Amino acid sequence: MIRYLTAGESHGRQLTAILDGIPSGLQLGLKDIDADLKRRQGGYGRGDRMKIESDKVSIVSGVRFGKTTGAPITLIIENKDNVSWRKKMSIYKKDSDESIFITKPRPGHADLTGHIKYDQPDIRNILERSSARETAARVAVGAVAKKLLKTFGIEVISTVLSIGNIRADLNGLTIDKINELTERSDLRTADRGAEEKMKRRIDRAKKDGDSLGGIFRVTVRGAPAGLGSHTQYDKKLDAKLAFAMMSIQAIKGVEFGLGFKYADSPGSKVHDEIFYGTKRGYYKKSNNAGGIEGGMSNSEDIVINCVMKPIPTLYKPLNSVDIVTKKGFKATVERSDTCAVPAAAVIGEAAAAFEIADAFLTKFSSDNMKEVKRNFSAYKRYIRSL
Amino acid sequence: MIRYLTAGESHGRQLTAILDGIPSGLQLGLKDIDADLKRRQGGYGRGDRMKIESDKVSIVSGVRFGKTTGAPITLIIENKDNVSWRKKMSIYKKDSDESIFITKPRPGHADLTGHIKYDQPDIRNILERSSARETAARVAVGAVAKKLLKTFGIEVISTVLSIGNIRADLNGLTIDKINELTERSDLRTADRGAEEKMKRRIDRAKKDGDSLGGIFRVTVRGAPAGLGSHTQYDKKLDAKLAFAMMSIQAIKGVEFGLGFKYADSPGSKVHDEIFYGTKRGYYKKSNNAGGIEGGMSNSEDIVINCVMKPIPTLYKPLNSVDIVTKKGFKATVERSDTCAVPAAAVIGEAAAAFEIADAFLTKFSSDNMKEVKRNFSAYKRYIRSL
Amino acid sequence: MIRYLTAGESHGRQLTAILDGIPSGLQLGLKDIDADLKRRQGGYGRGDRMKIESDKVSIVSGVRFGKTTGAPITLIIENKDNVSWRKKMSIYKKDSDESIFITKPRPGHADLTGHIKYDQPDIRNILERSSARETAARVAVGAVAKKLLKTFGIEVISTVLSIGNIRADLNGLTIDKINELTERSDLRTADRGAEEKMKRRIDRAKKDGDSLGGIFRVTVRGAPAGLGSHTQYDKKLDAKLAFAMMSIQAIKGVEFGLGFKYADSPGSKVHDEIFYGTKRGYYKKSNNAGGIEGGMSNSEDIVINCVMKPIPTLYKPLNSVDIVTKKGFKATVERSDTCAVPAAAVIGEAAAAFEIADAFLTKFSSDNMKEVKRNFSAYKRYIRSL
Amino acid sequence: MIRYLTAGESHGRQLTAILDGIPSGLQLGLKDIDADLKRRQGGYGRGDRMKIESDKVSIVSGVRFGKTTGAPITLIIENKDNVSWRKKMSIYKKDSDESIFITKPRPGHADLTGHIKYDQPDIRNILERSSARETAARVAVGAVAKKLLKTFGIEVISTVLSIGNIRADLNGLTIDKINELTERSDLRTADRGAEEKMKRRIDRAKKDGDSLGGIFRVTVRGAPAGLGSHTQYDKKLDAKLAFAMMSIQAIKGVEFGLGFKYADSPGSKVHDEIFYGTKRGYYKKSNNAGGIEGGMSNSEDIVINCVMKPIPTLYKPLNSVDIVTKKGFKATVERSDTCAVPAAAVIGEAAAAFEIADAFLTKFSSDNMKEVKRNFSAYKRYIRSL
Repeated sequence: MIRYLTAGESHGRQLTAILDGIPSGLQLGLKDIDADLKRRQGGYGRGDRMKIESDKVSIVSGVRFGKTTGAPITLIIENKDNVSWRKKMSIYKKDSDESIFITKPRPGHADLTGHIKYDQPDIRNILERSSARETAARVAVGAVAKKLLKTFGIEVISTVLSIGNIRADLNGLTIDKINELTERSDLRTADRGAEEKMKRRIDRAKKDGDSLGGIFRVTVRGAPAGLGSHTQYDKKLDAKLAFAMMSIQAIKGVEFGLGFKYADSPGSKVHDEIFYGTKRGYYKKSNNAGGIEGGMSNSEDIVINCVMKPIPTLYKPLNSVDIVTKKGFKATVERSDTCAVPAAAVIGEAAAAFEIADAFLTKFSSDNMKEVKRNFSAYKRYIRSL
Repeated sequence: MIRYLTAGESHGRQLTAILDGIPSGLQLGLKDIDADLKRRQGGYGRGDRMKIESDKVSIVSGVRFGKTTGAPITLIIENKDNVSWRKKMSIYKKDSDESIFITKPRPGHADLTGHIKYDQPDIRNILERSSARETAARVAVGAVAKKLLKTFGIEVISTVLSIGNIRADLNGLTIDKINELTERSDLRTADRGAEEKMKRRIDRAKKDGDSLGGIFRVTVRGAPAGLGSHTQYDKKLDAKLAFAMMSIQAIKGVEFGLGFKYADSPGSKVHDEIFYGTKRGYYKKSNNAGGIEGGMSNSEDIVINCVMKPIPTLYKPLNSVDIVTKKGFKATVERSDTCAVPAAAVIGEAAAAFEIADAFLTKFSSDNMKEVKRNFSAYKRYIRSL
Repeated sequence: MIRYLTAGESHGRQLTAILDGIPSGLQLGLKDIDADLKRRQGGYGRGDRMKIESDKVSIVSGVRFGKTTGAPITLIIENKDNVSWRKKMSIYKKDSDESIFITKPRPGHADLTGHIKYDQPDIRNILERSSARETAARVAVGAVAKKLLKTFGIEVISTVLSIGNIRADLNGLTIDKINELTERSDLRTADRGAEEKMKRRIDRAKKDGDSLGGIFRVTVRGAPAGLGSHTQYDKKLDAKLAFAMMSIQAIKGVEFGLGFKYADSPGSKVHDEIFYGTKRGYYKKSNNAGGIEGGMSNSEDIVINCVMKPIPTLYKPLNSVDIVTKKGFKATVERSDTCAVPAAAVIGEAAAAFEIADAFLTKFSSDNMKEVKRNFSAYKRYIRSL
Repeated sequence: MIRYLTAGESHGRQLTAILDGIPSGLQLGLKDIDADLKRRQGGYGRGDRMKIESDKVSIVSGVRFGKTTGAPITLIIENKDNVSWRKKMSIYKKDSDESIFITKPRPGHADLTGHIKYDQPDIRNILERSSARETAARVAVGAVAKKLLKTFGIEVISTVLSIGNIRADLNGLTIDKINELTERSDLRTADRGAEEKMKRRIDRAKKDGDSLGGIFRVTVRGAPAGLGSHTQYDKKLDAKLAFAMMSIQAIKGVEFGLGFKYADSPGSKVHDEIFYGTKRGYYKKSNNAGGIEGGMSNSEDIVINCVMKPIPTLYKPLNSVDIVTKKGFKATVERSDTCAVPAAAVIGEAAAAFEIADAFLTKFSSDNMKEVKRNFSAYKRYIRSL
């Protein structure tokens, strides 16, 4: 079992994550993590803050001489713009300043409910933590999980399927091609034509002070059959993945494989038939199930689609109510992203990678990499022997 | 914190659930649970087994003189047809009989992966547990959660939105009307016209030896603002609900509120604006978010849509491979449901109710009902005082 | 990870346990469990109820044809004397009868605090669950864990070290001899001379209407080095074992190896030195640490001593106060054990066995026995190769 | 539910703890934590490192303007001597230097087993994390818990009962007096005569290159009745406290109240009788149970004794074996504490405080301090009304 906690405010000194349970002997360097932090910050349609940040991770425990030691790993991402926020985010009572309290909750955010639940007169104390800034820490955690999985031939990739209501057409593209095109795309999408339209849509939304959501896909390639379990409701791999994806800020829907399209076709058309080849062993010719049957990975690609709502921080005013005066006002902002779907796709990779790594290590031990490899190799031999 | 485990095989002696952490003093009778067991067994398009079963619960711990005592509650549902299965499901080694081993995995099920993961030569040892029969135990657990929530004015209801590719039109119907129509419908749907078409579609699928999936909606009404939390990824209420729904057999997608439609509209069109009235307090005129913002209930209805894949147990043959001979065969069955979407909706209520009850008791204590009521009332007074 | 929940009242219909996560392929029969249930019921100084009960387990899920299937295992122990309690323990409101309410809390029990916490006017609703009767379910769970461990050469045994203030002298006895003598002793003690004195002490206490506590030892033999972990406070094996032992009714202290005697000697006298032999590998000549260093098993015997307080249900009156009248009274009982230390030792085995099995399966996988064996064998080869 | 993870190596850059679930609105300043960090570093018989360190905490999340916000709290304690260790503890592969690898495991430590379990050629990768240095982070976490508890009139204090085999005589001292004397004592003991003897014993041990263990007591004052639960084995407060205490480095035994002395007296002598006064409500004249009956706090002081083994890092040589050459050697060290029992007592306070705070917030909500106070006050009124 691996686990993690994140902490830190959007304009605080730093984000911190403690990742516990990673086996010893995993080669891990800063660049393994920084590469994903950078991918998270990319994307056409991001606001100015992305440029300020240029996130870099520090590893301050759990790694020595280029390898994990088995001890918990502490990952720190400093907030580069914190300097100008030090006093406003001070931990000291003496710095308290009611004049800077935020009393205007933004629609679509945690602001109003957070104010109520946590009894906070200053909504900043809510929004600093509910902010998607937190996902930088999750991406760092996920990057470690991805590094581990890669050692065993498991990859976690993503691509954007739609932005605004422009859909990418992936017809006829192999997953390798999709991935290659995605990694070179400003919007993390594999359809160049759609990309251009998405950009124009983003441009228009930006001009209108509006924002756009979209759909992205995360794919896990190379996961062996048998992660997760059918035996108890809370051991199902798809349930865990759905949990992880839905816990990402602004995600409002998750589906596997055909997903909601399963509603439209009869069973005879959608279930993936089973075949056998002496060399390949069992295999399938379709993957409508998205790699999970009975709560377990079935060795096919695990295919997860997620929808992200448009960022609710808009230049275009929305009605809201001041929590002190109870008077209505028009909520607006000074700085925001117009579209963060490409970033969300990278965060989705991280969230999925963590769950797959957890299921993987639960099955193959999580003490040291040699043991994990030994157990995993033996399992692969067992499967070939079937 | 409440929790539960279920156990039991589809043709074993019984299903068992232990539900731990329910406060003392909750009035609970068999009929509270049997009513939902019956609702789960209903629905046009079910196979013959539903008639055999007519599930009834026994409560064998945790309840005395009509009330819970705070001790764990044991719920038992006997498998009425177990008599004919006693020897085939015997726990004794002496009854082992290789001639009845199932070696033909059904596509779309846990069969093949389960056989591999659990090293079982007899696929029955997998399918008996992966079967949706287990959901009867979850419905029983959920019925207790629903009874508890009802005490606090919280209702968990469901309606079927589509079967096959027939969609129900709910336009112009209040949620009360939808619920009323649903409870009187053979297919748990509120659109009588659509219902007729769905039935004909089911009839045709049945004739074809085929099966149908669909979409259902679960709605939680009356949940107070502030269940769940934005502060840590694994405390988010929508993540927990997504987990619960996706852990139900055959569910392949979950969305909140607008869900995947969020991808199609700009932010200015979809975020729910905030208003205030001296009597009502804060309120909204729309509920696109489906009752959850920032990982917390926001006092609006919590609206969850789920898609169920067609039941993969078909009369119509699908290709598969025998695990012993490695020869291909055509998978068929003798008895199955054609469509179980209405049942899935009831199971969905149970899964959601459990998570809401857990979040509710986490906030308001779970020792005894008087204390829960005291704390909940004080919270409502606090909200009114804001 | 394995886990379990127990449920059931002392005079209810049955005790139930659901044990989740046991690998498939473990040979398991009723006698594996009944043997320990019987050992739990033995011991000179037990009251009459032990004779009534003669506990037998039923396995109603998770086992087929003599082997576990990987599905959760349901264990049921019926309360044989329930017949006469049916109405008094009825779940129905209509059977409620205030005239049988218990309003007199017994000192030394959960009675008074339970009444307060769970707001119960009838203390029976507390004592039925706080009763040590529950430990029968834990023994059943532990018996499965012991069966699993035995497959890997790990044994969990116990012996009574003292009753009243009579101490057994184990000097000069090997652990095998201690175990052999213990298993043939009415009081589960290896010192025949002390046993006689203990019996006389019990006889006298019984005559006086009094009760006796004592100390027992649980020893885990054959656990490999490396269960548990030093890396996080909540992964330490000794912490988990202490948790398990202290959660047994009436246990008031737990120590490992020298335990409280560590306070009396300087470090140079008590730390176990490390040696190496080409055949044996690393070894030690002493085991003051009781088999655990740095929160991990070190391959030596794990030695746990626990103290049990005298059973607080006495014929000899103790002062208490009626919860309705607030008047003082003298608490007495009609039927009770005089000394249950031998039974507690058997329960201690079960509690320890579960924790060891959990740590073992966490390290070596918990899917199926072949895989566990494969991984465990590879680990042993690795250790030999060091 | 509150929870925490710690991370960090003894000579790494810092110790980090993330503490999750503390309600918003708790007043918290650095001095609340630093005071306990200082108490942990005190004690006659400590080595030189204690002087180097002078630990100070930084709070880098979860607190703003002097109060918690409900967000996770990140606590950092820098290792002041890390400067000279930067290269030896570097995360970079390029700094790897086999010449500094530690290959000589110290008896009594995690060294040898850790080397095996985590497959580490350099034992430093084990000892850096298994070191009791980690307890500084736990003390910081515990200080937050203590601050919270203090708001509700609950105090967690400690005193040393024995060092070497010198026992403090607390006869005739009230607990207030014990605490007062303890806080002014170099050895955290309330018996001035014993203190002098302990110091001389420590001086002699130091001269001999030896080390000393001892026994300390942690007392929780003011906890209300009803924390923990009798209903399930893993909800028992004493089990949780035993877990917490035993997870502290070098602790080898835990007992409540009379503890192991319960073995020596008949039940009639040791059970705490119940009385009632119109003003006081229920009360007891003795507290042999140490404040916990049936797994629940009973409103009496919770009294926990723990034994600490002598620090196994000795100047006096112990036999061990080099993991590379397999040759025997004499394990010695250059710098160490002679006796750390007073420090362990402070760590024990922290460990206990966390568990009590967790049980407290589980019962009274953990959203915001006003709500916790409201619920707690209502509970106290309820108890007075009984």
